[in-house]
Amino acid sequence: MRPLPEPARESLTLAPVLHALSDPVRLELVRRAWANPESTCSVLADGLDVPMSTLSNHWRVLREAGLISMTVDGRHRRIRPRADDLSDRFPGLLDPILRLGAAESLNSRLV
Amino acid sequence: MRPLPEPARESLTLAPVLHALSDPVRLELVRRAWANPESTCSVLADGLDVPMSTLSNHWRVLREAGLISMTVDGRHRRIRPRADDLSDRFPGLLDPILRLGAAESLNSRLV
Repeated sequence: MRPLPEPARESLTLAPVLHALSDPVRLELVRRAWANPESTCSVLADGLDVPMSTLSNHWRVLREAGLISMTVDGRHRRIRPRADDLSDRFPGLLDPILRLGAAESLNSRLV
Repeated sequence: MRPLPEPARESLTLAPVLHALSDPVRLELVRRAWANPESTCSVLADGLDVPMSTLSNHWRVLREAGLISMTVDGRHRRIRPRADDLSDRFPGLLDPILRLGAAESLNSRLV
């Protein structure tokens, strides 16, 4: 199990977090990660019509912004939402975004 | 007075709004516009150390995402926050972002 680098809680800033959430596919991945806090990249991306290289990039953006932790476990990449870090640094931010993202995804082709 | 094009309320989507707010200067402009609902580009950008061309681009991004209305009035560009449209389409979204943006700007060189 090898954890990939990520920013410390105290160095998280708002702009990269909002940027990470400003892509519909990334927002969908975050919604799924929050709903499934012990999962893997491939399970969370199941059914999304996105090339693997694009998905890798999305996961990197989410990790570097501080939204998720990623651990390499053999052939799997395990994803853990940094829910506590986010609610500590940005109280009240994520809930409305996840809720509004869910409402939009019902009307889109993403899900 | 010539209004510049902007998306209709019903066509506003979450991703462009979050993208527009994901830049610290744009977030600061939005905070100022919300605090000063009848103002101009130049007044709202007062004191920001940003080139004019960059500012024009920021205002365009904010207008195209649906955050502000912009009207050309002679040599002035008047800015109006689309607060009602935003709270109708994305209830609960903007308040935490503006609050967290204010908290961060106290610790930055922006203000």
